[in-house]
Amino acid sequence: MPLSPPAQPGQSLAEIETPALVLDLDAFERNLVAMAAFTQAHGVRLRPHAKTHKSPEIALRQIAHGAIGQCCQKVSEAEVLVAGGVGDVLVTNEIASPTKLDRLAQLARSARIGLCVDHAEGVREAAEAAARNDVVLDVYVEIDVGGRRCGIAPGEGAVRLAEAIARSNTLRFAGLQAYHGAAQHMRSIDERREAIERAGYAVRNTAERLAHAGLNCEIVSGAGTGTHELETQSGLWNEIQAGSYIFMDADYARNRQADGTPFRSFEHALFVLAGVMSKPVPDRAIVDAGHKAAAVDSGMPIPFRREGVVYTKPSDEHGVLTGDPIALPHRGDRLLLVPSHCDPTVNLHDWYVCMRGLHGPDAHVEAVWPVAGRGALT
Amino acid sequence: MPLSPPAQPGQSLAEIETPALVLDLDAFERNLVAMAAFTQAHGVRLRPHAKTHKSPEIALRQIAHGAIGQCCQKVSEAEVLVAGGVGDVLVTNEIASPTKLDRLAQLARSARIGLCVDHAEGVREAAEAAARNDVVLDVYVEIDVGGRRCGIAPGEGAVRLAEAIARSNTLRFAGLQAYHGAAQHMRSIDERREAIERAGYAVRNTAERLAHAGLNCEIVSGAGTGTHELETQSGLWNEIQAGSYIFMDADYARNRQADGTPFRSFEHALFVLAGVMSKPVPDRAIVDAGHKAAAVDSGMPIPFRREGVVYTKPSDEHGVLTGDPIALPHRGDRLLLVPSHCDPTVNLHDWYVCMRGLHGPDAHVEAVWPVAGRGALT
Repeated sequence: MPLSPPAQPGQSLAEIETPALVLDLDAFERNLVAMAAFTQAHGVRLRPHAKTHKSPEIALRQIAHGAIGQCCQKVSEAEVLVAGGVGDVLVTNEIASPTKLDRLAQLARSARIGLCVDHAEGVREAAEAAARNDVVLDVYVEIDVGGRRCGIAPGEGAVRLAEAIARSNTLRFAGLQAYHGAAQHMRSIDERREAIERAGYAVRNTAERLAHAGLNCEIVSGAGTGTHELETQSGLWNEIQAGSYIFMDADYARNRQADGTPFRSFEHALFVLAGVMSKPVPDRAIVDAGHKAAAVDSGMPIPFRREGVVYTKPSDEHGVLTGDPIALPHRGDRLLLVPSHCDPTVNLHDWYVCMRGLHGPDAHVEAVWPVAGRGALT
Repeated sequence: MPLSPPAQPGQSLAEIETPALVLDLDAFERNLVAMAAFTQAHGVRLRPHAKTHKSPEIALRQIAHGAIGQCCQKVSEAEVLVAGGVGDVLVTNEIASPTKLDRLAQLARSARIGLCVDHAEGVREAAEAAARNDVVLDVYVEIDVGGRRCGIAPGEGAVRLAEAIARSNTLRFAGLQAYHGAAQHMRSIDERREAIERAGYAVRNTAERLAHAGLNCEIVSGAGTGTHELETQSGLWNEIQAGSYIFMDADYARNRQADGTPFRSFEHALFVLAGVMSKPVPDRAIVDAGHKAAAVDSGMPIPFRREGVVYTKPSDEHGVLTGDPIALPHRGDRLLLVPSHCDPTVNLHDWYVCMRGLHGPDAHVEAVWPVAGRGALT
């Protein structure tokens, strides 16, 4: 028994069952246009990250605006994207499982498919899976550019992996995966600039060694919403993997504000619509959106255009609003929350309730899109 | 296109696709028996909380062990439970939406259904929904016993609400909802004892006033896994709403350890099985379970029986293991993580992979149960 969507096309904001994930289509479309303009003006490819949205509906709109395909973190996400009509998917991750590699290789019969490696065993296993399934896979060597997560150290070790890939009949060496995850959420522009400068040294060093070894490093892929201008300016990356720009969460917005450049390019387009279920005392209102409706790993969601109201103390299914008693909403009221971190928030919901004119008097539901890849973990 | 389960009955631990939510059926069944024995010995009703498990499969096993029904937080959870065969469901929450109240009232045609109120408007709206749908609803007055979330102040205001319920033709005053959420995770037994003592004063005061007003307060419901012995010992509560006892998460285990009574009654039965996708340096291993596989609102998940290994720095789809290089697992290895907070972790997964003999040499998948109420938000 699948759960029913919280809204139907044509309904007003007041008719949506809460809590619900609400997409402001107008702001979303402006974000699509802004990133397309940026990447086209700078001559870099855009391969947006689908771990943010998990939706072929959104992926196809990004591609219609010039994106060359999608990237994602999981084989199951790639399955959802290819089933939804995406023709070029890169899994920006290591896959240490023959059964997952088989599933990925099967996708390569109908789409261009890439993955990352940071270990010789990964090359061998990917080559075997591609051979078993009679396909060719694009393989990127992931180098650790400072994030201290996956990735081989920059330099000769990376060249050895690229050579092993190039020797395989079933793999194609496609380039470098050079994503600095930790830099995305550094608060000041100076910290982010320094981190991406260091990442650039690692990329340059490795790329030069690859060239010296006679290997064609066609693509250097990486960069997120938090740093993509820096990678682009460096001239070293030629493919951008930003994901959050379509939605803009509260944490990225805080960085933009710290930079003194609030919302230069992107607007909040994603919200959790919450309802007030109880207001037991004048200075406390309880909403029906807690941990299970808005992720709190990067801080609390922010009440949107509710000056003086603070969301605090979430539990599984409750959030506590405190602050100025005059500003606090009443029992039965609704309000929009800006998620602190979009990606895990989207993953809690089954549906995007897509609105036109969200902040105006004629706000209405235009469409309801499934979060088709929600829970795609394997 | 629904996502496929990560395992099939008969498979071994090594054949499960990671990450996966793994239920140790042996420990789970011992936990069922232990709580049944406790509540029966003390003459209190057990109404386990389904927000923990979101599964009729589990609910029906609790009921087979003597539970009188289920409680839950959301109307959509109640819909899943009733559809799965549960005949008695209490929504331990306020519902400030006529459409949700209609959905709840419709369930009362085939099950005994209760809800909570903390405001006169809530009584009126519930009565109207029951009348529209030609049913009778059980209504509990929620009093704030110290959690500072929902609930009217104990005392005369609560009596006024109970009187309004009792006057209605379509509502039945069923008792008090007196749940101290904040007390569940207080670290020391002394803090929890003091919190529940104060909650007990609030219950006694309100119950005496109800009796004075001639109202029969049949049920006082509340208590969670963290405090249920205290409410039971008080003699004031006669219905226990514990949920987590079936799984026991790391945070509750930390409390038990702080008490000097580690695992007196309940065992860890729920795990996230994670795979090591990368080990770029000897003192860092990266697993495929991050924010989207294990909730971190109550701290990091704990590697199970992996002395010297610490899970740290989760990102969306990665977790970093650090610690003793000799103890760290290798690329391709699997390990069990004990979730820090079961409820939001379960809500990230679509399937329970139910294992027999999990920690022994013959560990195998006995069944795969859907998390039928995952994402039931409204």
